[in-house]
Amino acid sequence: MIKSRLDKLTASMRTSNLDAVILNPGPTLKYLSGLNFHLMERPVVLFIMPDKDPVLVLPELELPKVDLFPYKVQPIAYGEKPSEWDQAFRKAAQALGLGAKRIGVEPRQLRLMEFRHVKAGAPEADFPDASDVLAELRLKKDSVELDAMRKAVQIAQSALEAVIPQIKIGMTERELASELMVQLFHHGSEADIPFAPIICAGPNSANPHATPGERKLQAGDLLVVDWGAAYDGYISDLTRTFAVGEVDDECKKIHQIVQDSNAAGRAAAKPGVSCAEVDKAARGVIEKTGYGKYFTHRTGHGIGMESHEGPYIRGDNTQLLEPGMTFTVEPGIYLNGRNGARVEDNMVITEDGAESLSDMPREMRVVG
Amino acid sequence: MIKSRLDKLTASMRTSNLDAVILNPGPTLKYLSGLNFHLMERPVVLFIMPDKDPVLVLPELELPKVDLFPYKVQPIAYGEKPSEWDQAFRKAAQALGLGAKRIGVEPRQLRLMEFRHVKAGAPEADFPDASDVLAELRLKKDSVELDAMRKAVQIAQSALEAVIPQIKIGMTERELASELMVQLFHHGSEADIPFAPIICAGPNSANPHATPGERKLQAGDLLVVDWGAAYDGYISDLTRTFAVGEVDDECKKIHQIVQDSNAAGRAAAKPGVSCAEVDKAARGVIEKTGYGKYFTHRTGHGIGMESHEGPYIRGDNTQLLEPGMTFTVEPGIYLNGRNGARVEDNMVITEDGAESLSDMPREMRVVG
Repeated sequence: MIKSRLDKLTASMRTSNLDAVILNPGPTLKYLSGLNFHLMERPVVLFIMPDKDPVLVLPELELPKVDLFPYKVQPIAYGEKPSEWDQAFRKAAQALGLGAKRIGVEPRQLRLMEFRHVKAGAPEADFPDASDVLAELRLKKDSVELDAMRKAVQIAQSALEAVIPQIKIGMTERELASELMVQLFHHGSEADIPFAPIICAGPNSANPHATPGERKLQAGDLLVVDWGAAYDGYISDLTRTFAVGEVDDECKKIHQIVQDSNAAGRAAAKPGVSCAEVDKAARGVIEKTGYGKYFTHRTGHGIGMESHEGPYIRGDNTQLLEPGMTFTVEPGIYLNGRNGARVEDNMVITEDGAESLSDMPREMRVVG
Repeated sequence: MIKSRLDKLTASMRTSNLDAVILNPGPTLKYLSGLNFHLMERPVVLFIMPDKDPVLVLPELELPKVDLFPYKVQPIAYGEKPSEWDQAFRKAAQALGLGAKRIGVEPRQLRLMEFRHVKAGAPEADFPDASDVLAELRLKKDSVELDAMRKAVQIAQSALEAVIPQIKIGMTERELASELMVQLFHHGSEADIPFAPIICAGPNSANPHATPGERKLQAGDLLVVDWGAAYDGYISDLTRTFAVGEVDDECKKIHQIVQDSNAAGRAAAKPGVSCAEVDKAARGVIEKTGYGKYFTHRTGHGIGMESHEGPYIRGDNTQLLEPGMTFTVEPGIYLNGRNGARVEDNMVITEDGAESLSDMPREMRVVG
């Protein structure tokens, strides 16, 4: 199965005019090798070219991993002295004849460190952005991937359900976040959770990327919980918003609008519809109410091995949805200094529509 | 306090002939801002220049964070369209006059993505490696940092103490690792634990980098637990070795040697002593017994915001220890295919010696 992923890549390299692709440790390398490499102070780079065995530059102490590759790889190992590492990359470039070639890179994953080593080995080469070609590979999930994602959603949902009865006025955001972490691992999440739970209430809930802090939950707060779990290398990323005790009418109103917006976004998703149309469906609901300017981010993003990947559910993205694509629908309204609300689900496009992997109640439940 | 870190950086930039330094989300940005930024698909870059307010390029949705900076920062925000991001970087470069300047970078942290945006804004600039200047900043911990590290050690210790009574013969390494994760978060660890706990017994304990697996604990095993917690961005990294039921005399012997070696390494650490001397003190104890060739790694590494940073406690490192430096002392003996033992503490150099932040009993306790 993994070998076929590599074959698919080399086929699309040909049509994309890429002579080679380089990968450092990260989701794409894991997808194409089935192996976990650490992103560390020592560079690890896999060079892929059509019709040649891939070349792997790596530290000597990682050599045992070469035998675990599901296809033949030519290793070039280096020792502990950083001054000798460029030499290993020169060898790799020579072995593959990378002289003035077009070497595709993933700028969001590749660090300047690895890039400079590769460039030292192939100073005449061009390094076009191959993100689209590589993202395309991982865009449509197969059934094995979807099973892992379903499991990651289930773990996240049952962890939060276990926490809800414990939420009390006077608890800090941080206490709640730490209890949610405990429950995530209790319910079977892997250690590499996609992100630390974002738990923020009252004025902090109006910041879409707040960090849980020492503020205590107060009656009247909206409480935004944005969390996820990891299973078999795949992740979930969900949000639910709660009322802490009795909240005012505007809080109720913005939550209802966000919930309607989320439903409209989910309903719009199906094969052949563009990402922009899904964004528009969700955003339209909020704009109609006059709160449009308080929905300050895109409607969603792809999800899989990474918590942010394609397809991006943005107003300017004309990409058409296809079966197997997975993404979030997560509209929000943020009233600066007061309160915010967001409702987020994880969707998969099916043959004739879309399915939400997440099914936890979306209405504003009262806690505290 | 954080402002003084920035002042220290700008002072060392002058002596290092750096006109500017750029930082993306990671430990150094957190150290210099006190804030958490995500490493994501949207670039966030802080531009630092002496005598100017730092400029922060960031997505609009992160703008609320600008007010949280402990010093004045000039924000340049961009919207959701990636095609407009270069424009924000051009603005930043113009605002700071970065034309043909020397802009220091951290190649191990900076991604090609951020680098290319900055370069689009300042195509004539040079980008020298500023890793040493930046690492030097974080080398000596202040009292606030040490408090966080103490707390990270306490959380780790109390989490393991809670697990010890639950250890039973027949449990798998993986079950034990998962229970330790739960207890880490129960005791207040932050989500970003430095690494998943390494729990390995019997033959697996002889592999210093083993992953917990399905092997069940057996009477006669040595059980190595290498684990850590995170608090306020700082981490701990400890190891203790246990006897599962009755172990043979060689197990007892190698544990005692490792414990003595750990004590000797800790005793050797003080201001003005080199990293090599600490390594030699710990290693000497093991070598004297004839087990030297089974101690297959360096004695320790620096610790703080990252689990591997300077100073490295290696036989070839002549760097002198200074008050505020923090590092591990973690000698081990690994008898391939049989058993291994390691005892690891987290040390801080004081004005006249060194203190172990960790004080959990080091002798081989019996479990199971």
